[in-house]
Amino acid sequence: MPEPSEQEGASRVRRGRGRRPAAEVCADVLEAAGALLLEGGMGPFTIEAVADRAGVSKTTIYKWWPSKGALALDGYFHAVESALTFPDSGDIEADLTAQLRAFVHVVTRTPAGRVIAELIGQAQTDPDLAAALLKRYSGPRRELAVETMLRARSRGRLRADVDPEVLVDQLWGACYHRLLMPNLPLTEEFAVSLVANLMRGVRG
Amino acid sequence: MPEPSEQEGASRVRRGRGRRPAAEVCADVLEAAGALLLEGGMGPFTIEAVADRAGVSKTTIYKWWPSKGALALDGYFHAVESALTFPDSGDIEADLTAQLRAFVHVVTRTPAGRVIAELIGQAQTDPDLAAALLKRYSGPRRELAVETMLRARSRGRLRADVDPEVLVDQLWGACYHRLLMPNLPLTEEFAVSLVANLMRGVRG
Repeated sequence: MPEPSEQEGASRVRRGRGRRPAAEVCADVLEAAGALLLEGGMGPFTIEAVADRAGVSKTTIYKWWPSKGALALDGYFHAVESALTFPDSGDIEADLTAQLRAFVHVVTRTPAGRVIAELIGQAQTDPDLAAALLKRYSGPRRELAVETMLRARSRGRLRADVDPEVLVDQLWGACYHRLLMPNLPLTEEFAVSLVANLMRGVRG
Repeated sequence: MPEPSEQEGASRVRRGRGRRPAAEVCADVLEAAGALLLEGGMGPFTIEAVADRAGVSKTTIYKWWPSKGALALDGYFHAVESALTFPDSGDIEADLTAQLRAFVHVVTRTPAGRVIAELIGQAQTDPDLAAALLKRYSGPRRELAVETMLRARSRGRLRADVDPEVLVDQLWGACYHRLLMPNLPLTEEFAVSLVANLMRGVRG
Protein backbone atom coordinates (compact mmCIF):
# COMPACT_ATOMS: atom_id res chain seq x y z
CA MET A 1 0.00 0.00 0.00
CA PRO A 2 1.30 3.49 -0.79
CA GLU A 3 2.44 5.94 1.88
CA PRO A 4 -0.07 8.75 2.26
CA SER A 5 0.99 11.91 0.43
CA GLU A 6 1.30 15.28 2.16
CA GLN A 7 -1.97 16.39 0.65
CA GLU A 8 -3.68 13.34 2.06
CA GLY A 9 -2.07 13.98 5.42
CA ALA A 10 -3.56 17.47 5.33
CA SER A 11 -6.99 16.03 4.56
CA ARG A 12 -6.73 13.70 7.49
CA VAL A 13 -5.85 16.59 9.74
CA ARG A 14 -8.75 18.60 8.29
CA ARG A 15 -11.10 15.76 9.20
CA GLY A 16 -9.58 15.60 12.65
CA ARG A 17 -8.52 11.97 12.41
CA GLY A 18 -5.28 10.28 13.22
CA ARG A 19 -3.24 8.34 10.68
CA ARG A 20 -5.74 6.16 8.86
CA PRO A 21 -4.96 2.65 7.68
CA ALA A 22 -5.02 2.19 3.90
CA ALA A 23 -8.04 -0.13 4.09
CA GLU A 24 -10.01 2.57 5.86
CA VAL A 25 -9.05 5.20 3.29
CA CYS A 26 -10.03 2.78 0.52
CA ALA A 27 -13.41 2.13 2.16
CA ASP A 28 -13.99 5.89 2.51
CA VAL A 29 -13.24 6.41 -1.18
CA LEU A 30 -15.65 3.62 -2.21
CA GLU A 31 -18.31 4.99 0.12
CA ALA A 32 -17.89 8.50 -1.31
CA ALA A 33 -17.90 7.23 -4.91
CA GLY A 34 -21.05 5.16 -4.37
CA ALA A 35 -22.86 8.00 -2.61
CA LEU A 36 -21.97 10.53 -5.32
CA LEU A 37 -23.13 8.18 -8.07
CA LEU A 38 -26.46 7.47 -6.40
CA GLU A 39 -27.00 11.18 -5.78
CA GLY A 40 -26.22 12.51 -9.23
CA GLY A 41 -25.42 9.74 -11.72
CA MET A 42 -22.36 9.82 -13.98
CA GLY A 43 -22.80 13.47 -15.06
CA PRO A 44 -21.22 15.20 -12.03
CA PHE A 45 -19.08 12.18 -11.08
CA THR A 46 -15.39 13.12 -11.11
CA ILE A 47 -12.27 11.84 -9.35
CA GLU A 48 -11.97 15.31 -7.78
CA ALA A 49 -15.49 15.20 -6.33
CA VAL A 50 -14.84 11.76 -4.85
CA ALA A 51 -11.49 12.90 -3.41
CA ASP A 52 -13.13 15.96 -1.81
CA ARG A 53 -15.91 13.93 -0.29
CA ALA A 54 -13.62 11.18 1.01
CA GLY A 55 -11.06 13.67 2.32
CA VAL A 56 -8.15 12.17 0.36
CA SER A 57 -5.95 13.45 -2.43
CA LYS A 58 -6.63 12.74 -6.09
CA THR A 59 -3.14 11.18 -6.16
CA THR A 60 -4.23 8.55 -3.67
CA ILE A 61 -7.26 7.67 -5.76
CA TYR A 62 -5.15 7.40 -8.92
CA LYS A 63 -2.77 5.04 -7.11
CA TRP A 64 -5.58 2.54 -6.60
CA TRP A 65 -7.93 3.15 -9.52
CA PRO A 66 -6.72 3.48 -13.11
CA SER A 67 -9.68 5.55 -14.32
CA LYS A 68 -12.87 7.33 -13.40
CA GLY A 69 -14.85 4.43 -14.87
CA ALA A 70 -13.06 1.86 -12.73
CA LEU A 71 -13.71 3.94 -9.62
CA ALA A 72 -17.37 4.42 -10.58
CA LEU A 73 -17.84 0.67 -11.04
CA ASP A 74 -16.18 -0.20 -7.72
CA GLY A 75 -18.20 2.52 -5.99
CA TYR A 76 -21.38 1.25 -7.59
CA PHE A 77 -20.66 -2.36 -6.61
CA HIS A 78 -19.89 -1.22 -3.06
CA ALA A 79 -23.14 0.80 -2.87
CA VAL A 80 -25.45 -1.99 -4.04
CA GLU A 81 -23.62 -5.01 -2.63
CA SER A 82 -25.37 -5.26 0.73
CA ALA A 83 -28.85 -4.91 -0.85
CA LEU A 84 -28.07 -7.70 -3.31
CA THR A 85 -26.75 -10.51 -1.12
CA PHE A 86 -28.06 -13.98 -1.88
CA PRO A 87 -30.21 -15.57 0.81
CA ASP A 88 -29.69 -19.31 1.44
CA SER A 89 -32.88 -20.81 2.80
CA GLY A 90 -32.40 -24.09 0.93
CA ASP A 91 -35.36 -23.25 -1.35
CA ILE A 92 -33.67 -22.11 -4.57
CA GLU A 93 -36.87 -20.77 -6.15
CA ALA A 94 -37.61 -18.61 -3.08
CA ASP A 95 -33.98 -17.49 -2.78
CA LEU A 96 -33.61 -16.49 -6.44
CA THR A 97 -36.97 -14.72 -6.36
CA ALA A 98 -36.05 -12.77 -3.22
CA GLN A 99 -32.69 -11.68 -4.66
CA LEU A 100 -34.20 -10.71 -8.02
CA ARG A 101 -36.95 -8.69 -6.32
CA ALA A 102 -34.28 -6.85 -4.34
CA PHE A 103 -32.32 -6.26 -7.55
CA VAL A 104 -35.41 -4.90 -9.34
CA HIS A 105 -36.16 -2.70 -6.34
CA VAL A 106 -32.63 -1.23 -6.34
CA VAL A 107 -32.55 -0.50 -10.08
CA THR A 108 -36.09 0.92 -10.28
CA ARG A 109 -36.58 2.69 -6.93
CA THR A 110 -33.12 4.22 -6.48
CA PRO A 111 -30.89 6.11 -8.94
CA ALA A 112 -28.77 2.93 -9.23
CA GLY A 113 -30.70 1.85 -12.34
CA ARG A 114 -29.83 4.98 -14.34
CA VAL A 115 -26.22 4.79 -13.13
CA ILE A 116 -25.62 1.21 -14.23
CA ALA A 117 -27.55 1.79 -17.49
CA GLU A 118 -25.29 4.76 -18.26
CA LEU A 119 -22.16 2.78 -17.38
CA ILE A 120 -23.22 -0.13 -19.60
CA GLY A 121 -24.14 2.36 -22.33
CA GLN A 122 -20.79 4.19 -22.24
CA ALA A 123 -18.94 0.87 -22.12
CA GLN A 124 -20.20 0.08 -25.64
CA THR A 125 -17.86 2.70 -27.11
CA ASP A 126 -15.19 2.95 -24.36
CA PRO A 127 -12.91 -0.12 -24.26
CA ASP A 128 -11.35 0.77 -20.88
CA LEU A 129 -14.75 1.18 -19.27
CA ALA A 130 -15.92 -2.05 -20.93
CA ALA A 131 -12.99 -3.97 -19.44
CA ALA A 132 -13.65 -2.41 -16.01
CA LEU A 133 -17.36 -3.26 -16.26
CA LEU A 134 -16.67 -6.95 -16.90
CA LYS A 135 -13.94 -7.25 -14.29
CA ARG A 136 -15.33 -5.06 -11.52
CA TYR A 137 -19.08 -5.42 -11.86
CA SER A 138 -20.70 -8.02 -14.12
CA GLY A 139 -18.02 -10.67 -13.51
CA PRO A 140 -18.18 -10.60 -9.69
CA ARG A 141 -22.00 -10.32 -9.66
CA ARG A 142 -22.24 -13.26 -12.07
CA GLU A 143 -19.96 -15.32 -9.82
CA LEU A 144 -22.15 -14.76 -6.76
CA ALA A 145 -25.24 -15.90 -8.67
CA VAL A 146 -23.48 -18.95 -10.10
CA GLU A 147 -22.24 -19.97 -6.62
CA THR A 148 -25.81 -19.89 -5.35
CA MET A 149 -27.03 -22.02 -8.24
CA LEU A 150 -24.20 -24.52 -8.00
CA ARG A 151 -25.05 -24.98 -4.32
CA ALA A 152 -28.67 -25.67 -5.33
CA ARG A 153 -27.50 -28.07 -8.01
CA SER A 154 -25.33 -29.98 -5.54
CA ARG A 155 -28.45 -30.34 -3.36
CA GLY A 156 -30.38 -31.74 -6.34
CA ARG A 157 -32.64 -28.68 -6.66
CA LEU A 158 -31.46 -27.80 -10.18
CA ARG A 159 -31.03 -30.27 -13.03
CA ALA A 160 -27.41 -31.43 -13.33
CA ASP A 161 -27.30 -30.78 -17.10
CA VAL A 162 -28.32 -27.12 -16.78
CA ASP A 163 -25.56 -24.51 -17.06
CA PRO A 164 -25.98 -21.96 -14.23
CA GLU A 165 -24.24 -19.33 -16.37
CA VAL A 166 -27.12 -19.47 -18.87
CA LEU A 167 -29.61 -19.00 -16.04
CA VAL A 168 -27.81 -15.80 -15.05
CA ASP A 169 -28.59 -14.38 -18.50
CA GLN A 170 -32.22 -15.58 -18.32
CA LEU A 171 -32.78 -13.98 -14.90
CA TRP A 172 -30.64 -10.86 -14.39
CA GLY A 173 -30.01 -10.48 -18.14
CA ALA A 174 -33.77 -10.37 -18.70
CA CYS A 175 -33.97 -7.53 -16.14
CA TYR A 176 -31.16 -5.59 -17.84
CA HIS A 177 -33.08 -5.99 -21.11
CA ARG A 178 -36.08 -4.18 -19.59
CA LEU A 179 -33.80 -1.62 -17.96
CA LEU A 180 -31.93 -0.77 -21.17
CA MET A 181 -34.85 -1.12 -23.63
CA PRO A 182 -37.86 -0.21 -21.48
CA ASN A 183 -40.70 -1.15 -23.82
CA LEU A 184 -42.30 -2.76 -20.76
CA PRO A 185 -41.84 -1.95 -17.08
CA LEU A 186 -39.33 -3.74 -14.87
CA THR A 187 -41.40 -4.86 -11.88
CA GLU A 188 -41.12 -7.26 -8.97
CA GLU A 189 -43.94 -9.33 -10.54
CA PHE A 190 -41.72 -9.65 -13.61
CA ALA A 191 -38.91 -10.96 -11.37
CA VAL A 192 -41.27 -13.55 -9.91
CA SER A 193 -42.30 -14.73 -13.41
CA LEU A 194 -38.68 -15.04 -14.54
CA VAL A 195 -37.91 -17.60 -11.85
CA ALA A 196 -41.25 -19.41 -12.15
CA ASN A 197 -40.92 -19.83 -15.93
CA LEU A 198 -37.47 -21.36 -15.62
CA MET A 199 -38.19 -23.59 -12.65
CA ARG A 200 -41.47 -24.99 -13.97
CA GLY A 201 -40.97 -24.80 -17.73
CA VAL A 202 -43.44 -23.12 -20.08
CA ARG A 203 -44.42 -26.00 -22.35
CA GLY A 204 -48.20 -26.39 -22.79
CA MET B 1 -45.50 12.13 -49.64
CA PRO B 2 -43.35 15.14 -50.51
CA GLU B 3 -42.57 16.29 -54.04
CA PRO B 4 -38.96 15.58 -54.95
CA SER B 5 -36.75 18.67 -54.57
CA GLU B 6 -34.53 20.03 -57.35
CA GLN B 7 -31.49 18.53 -55.71
CA GLU B 8 -33.15 15.16 -55.62
CA GLY B 9 -34.13 15.56 -59.28
CA ALA B 10 -30.47 16.15 -60.08
CA SER B 11 -29.51 13.00 -58.18
CA ARG B 12 -32.01 11.00 -60.13
CA VAL B 13 -30.65 12.34 -63.39
CA ARG B 14 -27.12 11.60 -62.18
CA ARG B 15 -28.16 8.03 -61.54
CA GLY B 16 -29.90 7.88 -64.92
CA ARG B 17 -33.34 7.05 -63.56
CA GLY B 18 -36.76 8.46 -64.34
CA ARG B 19 -39.10 9.94 -61.76
CA ARG B 20 -39.10 7.52 -58.85
CA PRO B 21 -42.14 6.82 -56.68
CA ALA B 22 -41.79 7.86 -53.04
CA ALA B 23 -41.88 4.26 -51.83
CA GLU B 24 -38.93 3.42 -54.01
CA VAL B 25 -36.94 6.41 -52.78
CA CYS B 26 -37.75 5.41 -49.21
CA ALA B 27 -36.60 1.83 -49.85
CA ASP B 28 -33.35 3.14 -51.39
CA VAL B 29 -32.69 5.30 -48.35
CA LEU B 30 -33.26 2.39 -45.94
CA GLU B 31 -31.06 0.14 -48.07
CA ALA B 32 -28.29 2.75 -48.11
CA ALA B 33 -28.59 3.40 -44.36
CA GLY B 34 -28.47 -0.31 -43.52
CA ALA B 35 -25.50 -0.96 -45.81
CA LEU B 36 -23.54 2.00 -44.40
CA LEU B 37 -24.18 0.89 -40.83
CA LEU B 38 -23.10 -2.68 -41.46
CA GLU B 39 -19.97 -1.46 -43.27
CA GLY B 40 -18.74 1.05 -40.73
CA GLY B 41 -20.93 1.19 -37.63
CA MET B 42 -22.22 4.45 -36.16
CA GLY B 43 -18.87 6.30 -36.39
CA PRO B 44 -19.03 7.34 -40.06
CA PHE B 45 -22.84 7.16 -40.27
CA THR B 46 -24.27 10.56 -41.28
CA ILE B 47 -27.45 11.74 -42.99
CA GLU B 48 -25.19 13.15 -45.73
CA ALA B 49 -23.47 9.82 -46.36
CA VAL B 50 -26.84 8.06 -46.60
CA ALA B 51 -28.18 10.76 -48.95
CA ASP B 52 -25.13 10.43 -51.20
CA ARG B 53 -25.36 6.68 -51.35
CA ALA B 54 -29.11 6.63 -51.97
CA GLY B 55 -28.91 9.42 -54.56
CA VAL B 56 -31.43 11.65 -52.76
CA SER B 57 -31.19 15.04 -51.08
CA LYS B 58 -30.66 15.44 -47.35
CA THR B 59 -33.91 17.44 -47.37
CA THR B 60 -35.82 14.38 -48.52
CA ILE B 61 -34.36 12.29 -45.73
CA TYR B 62 -35.20 14.94 -43.12
CA LYS B 63 -38.80 14.98 -44.39
CA TRP B 64 -39.20 11.34 -43.43
CA TRP B 65 -36.81 10.83 -40.54
CA PRO B 66 -36.58 13.24 -37.59
CA SER B 67 -32.97 12.40 -36.68
CA LYS B 68 -29.88 10.44 -37.57
CA GLY B 69 -30.71 7.95 -34.83
CA ALA B 70 -34.19 7.30 -36.18
CA LEU B 71 -32.75 6.73 -39.66
CA ALA B 72 -30.05 4.43 -38.26
CA LEU B 73 -32.62 2.35 -36.41
CA ASP B 74 -34.91 2.03 -39.43
CA GLY B 75 -31.91 1.19 -41.62
CA TYR B 76 -30.74 -1.40 -39.10
CA PHE B 77 -34.20 -2.98 -38.84
CA HIS B 78 -34.41 -3.09 -42.65
CA ALA B 79 -30.96 -4.70 -42.92
CA VAL B 80 -31.57 -7.49 -40.42
CA GLU B 81 -35.29 -8.08 -40.97
CA SER B 82 -35.08 -10.80 -43.62
CA ALA B 83 -32.47 -12.78 -41.65
CA LEU B 84 -34.67 -12.67 -38.55
CA THR B 85 -38.07 -13.83 -39.79
CA PHE B 86 -39.88 -16.34 -37.60
CA PRO B 87 -40.36 -19.79 -39.08
CA ASP B 88 -43.74 -21.48 -38.43
CA SER B 89 -43.30 -25.24 -38.54
CA GLY B 90 -45.83 -25.83 -35.74
CA ASP B 91 -43.00 -26.92 -33.39
CA ILE B 92 -42.47 -23.86 -31.18
CA GLU B 93 -39.24 -25.13 -29.61
CA ALA B 94 -37.69 -25.73 -33.04
CA ASP B 95 -39.00 -22.42 -34.41
CA LEU B 96 -37.73 -20.32 -31.49
CA THR B 97 -34.39 -22.10 -31.57
CA ALA B 98 -33.98 -21.52 -35.31
CA GLN B 99 -34.83 -17.83 -35.03
CA LEU B 100 -32.54 -17.31 -32.02
CA ARG B 101 -29.67 -19.08 -33.77
CA ALA B 102 -30.17 -16.77 -36.75
CA PHE B 103 -30.24 -13.77 -34.39
CA VAL B 104 -27.03 -14.87 -32.67
CA HIS B 105 -25.41 -15.44 -36.05
CA VAL B 106 -26.32 -11.92 -37.25
CA VAL B 107 -25.09 -10.15 -34.11
CA THR B 108 -21.86 -12.16 -33.77
CA ARG B 109 -20.83 -12.87 -37.38
CA THR B 110 -21.71 -9.53 -38.98
CA PRO B 111 -21.06 -5.94 -37.84
CA ALA B 112 -24.76 -5.77 -36.83
CA GLY B 113 -23.90 -6.71 -33.25
CA ARG B 114 -21.56 -3.75 -32.72
CA VAL B 115 -24.05 -1.42 -34.42
CA ILE B 116 -27.03 -2.35 -32.23
CA ALA B 117 -24.83 -2.42 -29.10
CA GLU B 118 -23.67 1.14 -29.88
CA LEU B 119 -27.23 2.30 -30.55
CA ILE B 120 -28.49 0.79 -27.28
CA GLY B 121 -25.47 2.30 -25.52
CA GLN B 122 -26.02 5.82 -26.89
CA ALA B 123 -29.73 5.57 -26.14
CA GLN B 124 -28.95 5.45 -22.41
CA THR B 125 -27.99 9.14 -22.44
CA ASP B 126 -29.88 10.36 -25.55
CA PRO B 127 -33.65 10.56 -24.96
CA ASP B 128 -34.50 11.04 -28.67
CA LEU B 129 -32.49 7.99 -29.65
CA ALA B 130 -34.03 6.05 -26.75
CA ALA B 131 -37.54 6.85 -27.99
CA ALA B 132 -36.58 5.88 -31.55
CA LEU B 133 -35.02 2.63 -30.31
CA LEU B 134 -38.20 1.55 -28.54
CA LYS B 135 -40.53 2.62 -31.33
CA ARG B 136 -38.53 1.63 -34.38
CA TYR B 137 -36.52 -1.39 -33.25
CA SER B 138 -37.19 -3.16 -29.95
CA GLY B 139 -40.97 -2.60 -30.05
CA PRO B 140 -41.55 -4.06 -33.53
CA ARG B 141 -39.10 -6.94 -32.95
CA ARG B 142 -40.81 -7.72 -29.64
CA GLU B 143 -44.20 -7.78 -31.38
CA LEU B 144 -43.04 -10.31 -33.97
CA ALA B 145 -41.77 -12.63 -31.24
CA VAL B 146 -44.94 -12.29 -29.17
CA GLU B 147 -47.13 -13.06 -32.22
CA THR B 148 -45.18 -16.29 -32.74
CA MET B 149 -45.60 -17.27 -29.10
CA LEU B 150 -49.30 -16.38 -28.96
CA ARG B 151 -49.84 -18.61 -32.00
CA ALA B 152 -48.07 -21.45 -30.16
CA ARG B 153 -50.14 -20.78 -27.06
CA SER B 154 -53.37 -20.90 -29.04
CA ARG B 155 -52.25 -24.32 -30.31
CA GLY B 156 -51.64 -25.47 -26.73
CA ARG B 157 -47.86 -25.61 -27.10
CA LEU B 158 -47.20 -22.98 -24.41
CA ARG B 159 -48.86 -22.83 -21.01
CA ALA B 160 -51.86 -20.46 -20.99
CA ASP B 161 -50.69 -18.69 -17.82
CA VAL B 162 -47.27 -17.79 -19.22
CA ASP B 163 -46.79 -14.19 -20.42
CA PRO B 164 -45.07 -14.27 -23.84
CA GLU B 165 -43.62 -10.81 -23.16
CA VAL B 166 -41.57 -12.24 -20.28
CA LEU B 167 -40.26 -14.99 -22.57
CA VAL B 168 -38.98 -12.32 -24.96
CA ASP B 169 -36.76 -10.99 -22.16
CA GLN B 170 -35.62 -14.51 -21.23
CA LEU B 171 -34.67 -15.38 -24.82
CA TRP B 172 -33.56 -12.31 -26.80
CA GLY B 173 -32.93 -10.27 -23.65
CA ALA B 174 -30.52 -12.97 -22.45
CA CYS B 175 -28.66 -12.63 -25.77
CA TYR B 176 -28.46 -8.84 -25.44
CA HIS B 177 -27.03 -9.36 -21.95
CA ARG B 178 -24.12 -11.36 -23.42
CA LEU B 179 -23.76 -8.87 -26.27
CA LEU B 180 -23.57 -5.81 -23.98
CA MET B 181 -21.67 -7.41 -21.06
CA PRO B 182 -19.60 -10.10 -22.77
CA ASN B 183 -18.23 -11.97 -19.77
CA LEU B 184 -19.13 -15.12 -21.69
CA PRO B 185 -19.45 -15.67 -25.44
CA LEU B 186 -22.76 -15.39 -27.29
CA THR B 187 -22.99 -18.66 -29.24
CA GLU B 188 -25.60 -20.69 -31.08
CA GLU B 189 -25.27 -23.37 -28.38
CA PHE B 190 -26.25 -20.70 -25.87
CA ALA B 191 -29.35 -19.94 -27.97
CA VAL B 192 -30.27 -23.63 -27.94
CA SER B 193 -29.93 -23.77 -24.13
CA LEU B 194 -32.09 -20.68 -23.66
CA VAL B 195 -35.07 -22.32 -25.35
CA ALA B 196 -34.46 -25.74 -23.80
CA ASN B 197 -34.28 -24.34 -20.25
CA LEU B 198 -37.57 -22.51 -20.63
CA MET B 199 -39.47 -25.27 -22.41
CA ARG B 200 -38.38 -28.07 -20.08
CA GLY B 201 -37.82 -26.23 -16.82
CA VAL B 202 -34.61 -26.48 -14.81
CA ARG B 203 -35.88 -27.89 -11.51
CA GLY B 204 -33.88 -30.89 -10.27
